[in-house]
Amino acid sequence: MRSSTGALLPDLVGVMDARAPLHRQLYARVRGAILDGVFAPGHRLPSTRTLAADLGLSRITVESAFTQLRAEGFVVRRVGSGSFVADVLPDHARPPGRVARSARAPAPARRPALSERGREIVRSALAPEPAGVKVFQPCMPALDAFPQAVWSRLLARRARRRGTALLAYGEAAGHRPLRQAIAAYLASARGVRCGWEQVVVLAGAQQGIELAARVLLDPGDEVWHEEPGYLGARGAFRTAGATLVPIRVDDDGLDVAAGMRAAPRARIAYVTPSHQYPLGVTMSLARRLALLAWAERAAAWIIEDDYDSEFRYNGRPIAAVQGLDGAERVIYVGTFNKVMFPSLRLAYLVAPPDLVRAFVAARALSDGHPPVHVQAALTDFIEEGHFGAHVRRMRALYEERRDALVAALEVHVGSAMRIGVADAGMHLVGHLPRSVDDEAIVGAAAAQGLGVGALSRQYLGRSASSGLLLGFTGSPPDAQRRGARALAALLGSRRG
Amino acid sequence: MRSSTGALLPDLVGVMDARAPLHRQLYARVRGAILDGVFAPGHRLPSTRTLAADLGLSRITVESAFTQLRAEGFVVRRVGSGSFVADVLPDHARPPGRVARSARAPAPARRPALSERGREIVRSALAPEPAGVKVFQPCMPALDAFPQAVWSRLLARRARRRGTALLAYGEAAGHRPLRQAIAAYLASARGVRCGWEQVVVLAGAQQGIELAARVLLDPGDEVWHEEPGYLGARGAFRTAGATLVPIRVDDDGLDVAAGMRAAPRARIAYVTPSHQYPLGVTMSLARRLALLAWAERAAAWIIEDDYDSEFRYNGRPIAAVQGLDGAERVIYVGTFNKVMFPSLRLAYLVAPPDLVRAFVAARALSDGHPPVHVQAALTDFIEEGHFGAHVRRMRALYEERRDALVAALEVHVGSAMRIGVADAGMHLVGHLPRSVDDEAIVGAAAAQGLGVGALSRQYLGRSASSGLLLGFTGSPPDAQRRGARALAALLGSRRG
Repeated sequence: MRSSTGALLPDLVGVMDARAPLHRQLYARVRGAILDGVFAPGHRLPSTRTLAADLGLSRITVESAFTQLRAEGFVVRRVGSGSFVADVLPDHARPPGRVARSARAPAPARRPALSERGREIVRSALAPEPAGVKVFQPCMPALDAFPQAVWSRLLARRARRRGTALLAYGEAAGHRPLRQAIAAYLASARGVRCGWEQVVVLAGAQQGIELAARVLLDPGDEVWHEEPGYLGARGAFRTAGATLVPIRVDDDGLDVAAGMRAAPRARIAYVTPSHQYPLGVTMSLARRLALLAWAERAAAWIIEDDYDSEFRYNGRPIAAVQGLDGAERVIYVGTFNKVMFPSLRLAYLVAPPDLVRAFVAARALSDGHPPVHVQAALTDFIEEGHFGAHVRRMRALYEERRDALVAALEVHVGSAMRIGVADAGMHLVGHLPRSVDDEAIVGAAAAQGLGVGALSRQYLGRSASSGLLLGFTGSPPDAQRRGARALAALLGSRRG
Repeated sequence: MRSSTGALLPDLVGVMDARAPLHRQLYARVRGAILDGVFAPGHRLPSTRTLAADLGLSRITVESAFTQLRAEGFVVRRVGSGSFVADVLPDHARPPGRVARSARAPAPARRPALSERGREIVRSALAPEPAGVKVFQPCMPALDAFPQAVWSRLLARRARRRGTALLAYGEAAGHRPLRQAIAAYLASARGVRCGWEQVVVLAGAQQGIELAARVLLDPGDEVWHEEPGYLGARGAFRTAGATLVPIRVDDDGLDVAAGMRAAPRARIAYVTPSHQYPLGVTMSLARRLALLAWAERAAAWIIEDDYDSEFRYNGRPIAAVQGLDGAERVIYVGTFNKVMFPSLRLAYLVAPPDLVRAFVAARALSDGHPPVHVQAALTDFIEEGHFGAHVRRMRALYEERRDALVAALEVHVGSAMRIGVADAGMHLVGHLPRSVDDEAIVGAAAAQGLGVGALSRQYLGRSASSGLLLGFTGSPPDAQRRGARALAALLGSRRG
């Protein structure tokens, strides 16, 4: 094999691609020929001069390709005798998968590709959000009403600001002025009591839940989970190795007494007190206080997911559980992605002072922090009053849209569906008789472009109720009316 | 206690804050009085008319506060007899922490605040990045040379684009055009072989390592870790419960034979083949092929962290290990945060096809995706040629800055320090005699505003070498010269 077979090269090189540098292409093809075994170890390669002439390339091009091949160890030059394919270690001379395995070589180990945790992650995978906006999609804000011009102006101002302060690394806990703006907003709007040092900026509320699961849960720890409850939280707890204990939700929210009977030593209680996801009920004061008292006695943590608390249509927003907490057991989580727009990716958590360090460490080890100029632009948006104004406008708009949906459902769907609590948030639940397969309705509705969710999917246990999650904030009244008619047809045909 | 003591209220209300709505302030103070036990359960409150007169507030203000108190369950109205503090469940009538615990009540459970994993996260916490740019800070690009005007123009264009397509949820795997641009770039610049479907957009290279640790490692699994090696990766593996096996690095990179002796059944080998972190050496082709062969036989995974491969000053960049992999064992990780600017927060991984689903599921469960308009702006930056031009400019600038640092070290520090490999990347290592305490030098240098790192910190085992990590890309030559003089003084005084 140690003879020159330079005549092979022109075939190998074949047709060149005019868009890529020629020396890169030559390099890649010769490398491929070595890896594929066309050129064996020790094989002598033609001189660069010969090659250049044979291939009609400049000598510099060929020399450049060979310099690279030598730098990477594919080719060695022996002074006075030319270039050779490297004599690499015989056992490892070629990439695996291309080598005929000898009979004595051990068979590849058999083990699963993923870890146990990885397999749980795949089992807990969230359905991808639909592209764009679907009518009835829960938690979708009115994108058509977002002040894009103001936002892009603020963003560009921050991105082009002279000086490089916003280009360097930001703090893992978040941009300090944004943390301060969030603390001030939460104190006045939500009754949250915290210093800005307790605020950690996130990409989404989900991230807050996931970080809490990682920082607070050991495998086997029990978690109170609202039944029905939020799938994303369920996935985060499960992939942290926790045991989920479903706790029923009634008109007063999570049944704390039931939780204390089922899992008195649970490590975390996950709750959505302002607007229970998905049922929409508000947790009563008695339950809130009972929950806090249990958490203190049990040294358990409460994750308060306040995901859409900005929108309450009857009366003012209910203050957060965090503000009632005298024992620092609450991790409060909220998001800008539903008030502003989903692709923004900014949210926050408020941690008890003792936990801040662990949350920030976990954040830094997992993904650092959100883009700093986006954080700075949001700070400006809040401090210049655009945020407050936008929330007020959206509250009025969403109330209108809710009324339109309720009216359309009453007209078109009528008694086939019982409309659940709808005095807050961005969606309502249309309850169906248990005999109706809500997942089938959701599938049929999706085929018609409707983004409804299935209530039964939000249950952990077997006694799931049937119903539809109907977002009313993302689409204008006429689209909702058309959607209600389509739903009525689907429900009618299922009953028939 | 069921008597009216309305006279107490004016004291409680005290001085109002002119900046907040009066009804909110009244609400907050009455709520506080109930929670603090000043008003006990069942306590009758004065009528709103009496209160308004006593406090000099409008009746509407007082009514609004009481409506809120009733909505939250603090106050109940009994028809015909007025408003009372609610009779909440006696055991839970007050927030924990403010209640004198009765002798019979069980003592609070004693358990650690954090999970075992949480404690490991705190132990593995990365030192925060310094604010701004420090001379010699490793991995800090030349922010002063970044084309901020172009970038802010592209960003604003994407943020104000008509229509709402970029406002809705993005895909968890990343913005599709960006994934396509990354796949094309990696194929031509790094020899990576992949379809765009294998690309997952991240916030940082660290996130890729952390996701891989979660998806691929079970507690107790062994990981080959370069010795010395990258602390962030070490933290990610440790917090996933892995056992780290330090594998020595020599002039040819990680010693694969040593790895096979120490931990033949390891689950992951973590390597930085293009420019070893921190030593700066390049892994030889023989080692690359040996690593791939082992990974295939052992059904192990290779994490190839190609964190600053864009910058090679002698010869062209060395192609990625991923491109040699015929058995789909490599998870390739790279970042834009060092080529563009650190606060951008965009990076990527290329997963073997079988693993993509798990990585995307883990991404969705943890933090969703980066802001979509930032991803779209980066796509434009690449496709309009700004990215390629910027890399070329920085390669020339960084070579100049490296030469300046090497020269300054030779002049000022001289034989007190041996300069390591410096033909690629963004930093070099200045090796010190073992008797010199590099951490002490780093501390003293930090006090003078220098951002050097300690080599000994990057070792897992006991036989750590002493040395300084010197970033040369972030600061201009004159600042580096001043820094070198300051270092020389520190080293001189340590020896003296």
